[in-house]
Amino acid sequence: MTDKQGPQFRKMAIIGIGLIGSSIARAARQRGLVAEITCSARTQDTRRTALELGVVDEAFEHSIDAVKDADLVVFCTPVGTYGTIAEEIAPALKKGALVTDVGSVKQMVVEAIEPHIPDGVDFVAGHPISGTEKSGPAAGFAELFDNRWWIVTPSKKSTEVAVQKLTAFCEGLGSSVEKMEPPHHDLVLAITSHIPHLVAYNIVGTADDLEEVTQSEVIKYSAGGFRDFTRLAASDPTMWRDVFLHNKEAVLEMLARFSEDLTALQRAIRWGDGDALFQMFSRTRAIRRQIIDAGQETPEANFGRSASSDD
Amino acid sequence: MTDKQGPQFRKMAIIGIGLIGSSIARAARQRGLVAEITCSARTQDTRRTALELGVVDEAFEHSIDAVKDADLVVFCTPVGTYGTIAEEIAPALKKGALVTDVGSVKQMVVEAIEPHIPDGVDFVAGHPISGTEKSGPAAGFAELFDNRWWIVTPSKKSTEVAVQKLTAFCEGLGSSVEKMEPPHHDLVLAITSHIPHLVAYNIVGTADDLEEVTQSEVIKYSAGGFRDFTRLAASDPTMWRDVFLHNKEAVLEMLARFSEDLTALQRAIRWGDGDALFQMFSRTRAIRRQIIDAGQETPEANFGRSASSDD
Repeated sequence: MTDKQGPQFRKMAIIGIGLIGSSIARAARQRGLVAEITCSARTQDTRRTALELGVVDEAFEHSIDAVKDADLVVFCTPVGTYGTIAEEIAPALKKGALVTDVGSVKQMVVEAIEPHIPDGVDFVAGHPISGTEKSGPAAGFAELFDNRWWIVTPSKKSTEVAVQKLTAFCEGLGSSVEKMEPPHHDLVLAITSHIPHLVAYNIVGTADDLEEVTQSEVIKYSAGGFRDFTRLAASDPTMWRDVFLHNKEAVLEMLARFSEDLTALQRAIRWGDGDALFQMFSRTRAIRRQIIDAGQETPEANFGRSASSDD
Repeated sequence: MTDKQGPQFRKMAIIGIGLIGSSIARAARQRGLVAEITCSARTQDTRRTALELGVVDEAFEHSIDAVKDADLVVFCTPVGTYGTIAEEIAPALKKGALVTDVGSVKQMVVEAIEPHIPDGVDFVAGHPISGTEKSGPAAGFAELFDNRWWIVTPSKKSTEVAVQKLTAFCEGLGSSVEKMEPPHHDLVLAITSHIPHLVAYNIVGTADDLEEVTQSEVIKYSAGGFRDFTRLAASDPTMWRDVFLHNKEAVLEMLARFSEDLTALQRAIRWGDGDALFQMFSRTRAIRRQIIDAGQETPEANFGRSASSDD
């Protein structure tokens, strides 16, 4: 935690004011980490919503206008846009400013942004491990980062002072910070986030395509387990397209392992190998227990979700 | 709903008093559907817990003792045990009794139980589409079946009157009832429940086996999506072993489709086909919306789970 004497940054610019961007804006404002917040957003609708919600003080169509005089610049758009935006805003970045991002992949982000960062400007990439399946500025909330991890991945141009400044900011937002090499981040997130999303999108797609089972049946009987997957599969399509395009190698590696393991289970089912199935199904409970103990999951049955939507 | 004048069944026997069995006992008692409840359970520990919780009036080691004089007998053990138990209890079944079950597969259940049902005893198989990842009698609760579906699968020996009696009972427990052919049930549940569980067990297993990513990293960063899967993967291993052994064909068929679709996504990632990924990721949101509208899921972000386990 920072020893606060006024805000840590006078002016913060959020590039892309969706779920994450607007949550950072709300949390930073609520906790007094910044004095002034600007944002950029492509559509007028998003800019109007952000202003109406009081999440930002000013909203611009072009990122170059939003970053003017900013002491902290946070990229919150889909990672595929980073290179172009970095190039666009570079001339307008203030001396001494800190640039960071919240992208779900890191090696590619460093490669896309770092070359454009001018001398005298700091850059440290980062990734908050938090979110929901909702999108847009109205979906954000100030508590999104509480008790979550924020991975910071220093690269060539990251100074130790800049890393400390970003760490203090993330902690101020409610998170714990861990440093990691960008390629290792991409491998860890491939299994803890990217493959889970891919598998969720896939199973929902498979169910949608069946002829023998109607969509109405899939919906009615989804409480048998399927509905859990629909949450991740309701995530933002553009964001996730970019994640898979930009973390190709780690995702393909993890996917190959997942498929191998699934083939082994398939074989056990085909040959009626109950012992193999039982053994496999027995070792997974312990992991959930540890996630609960680590404060990253609710111990309540069914995620504590209400029994029905009309509760 | 039944027009109640006293309990629908005088005595109910629950064979296997785990999550589902104890929830039926609690709900039936609370709503006055039965006057007396017995159960059987293999371990003394389970019998003692069930008695201490006040969920049942009497608990027996052998099912044949529990079903004596029972007007309703409900199989709530893993489906692989059904044949042996049906054979054991057959001589003790009371004339006019109704026998049912809660197993997650139905064709095999009909084949395992029906041949043992004596003349003058009714049999109608069933499956409540509700549950949690917890196991044992202490995990049950009376509201488990509220606003959920209960699929009833009449077979050769099921009389229309018996189907109506079971329907009234399930409705009394809080569920809506739908009739289905046993093989169709098995196909529907393969995609809405069995494959989701298999995939969840599998991804948790894959993550557990990695060398490049530590288990501690998987746990810390599980909020990226992975933790959602650990809920289904924390389900009872014996129950799920039996489901896969006894719904082999439908599961293998759905698994083949799932794997085909996943291979197509893998190919799109390898070749950088962003349009295919975006298209696939765009059509899945609508399904979650429909599940929420159908009252089978909470509309709250992140399942409405508390932000941290210590909330």
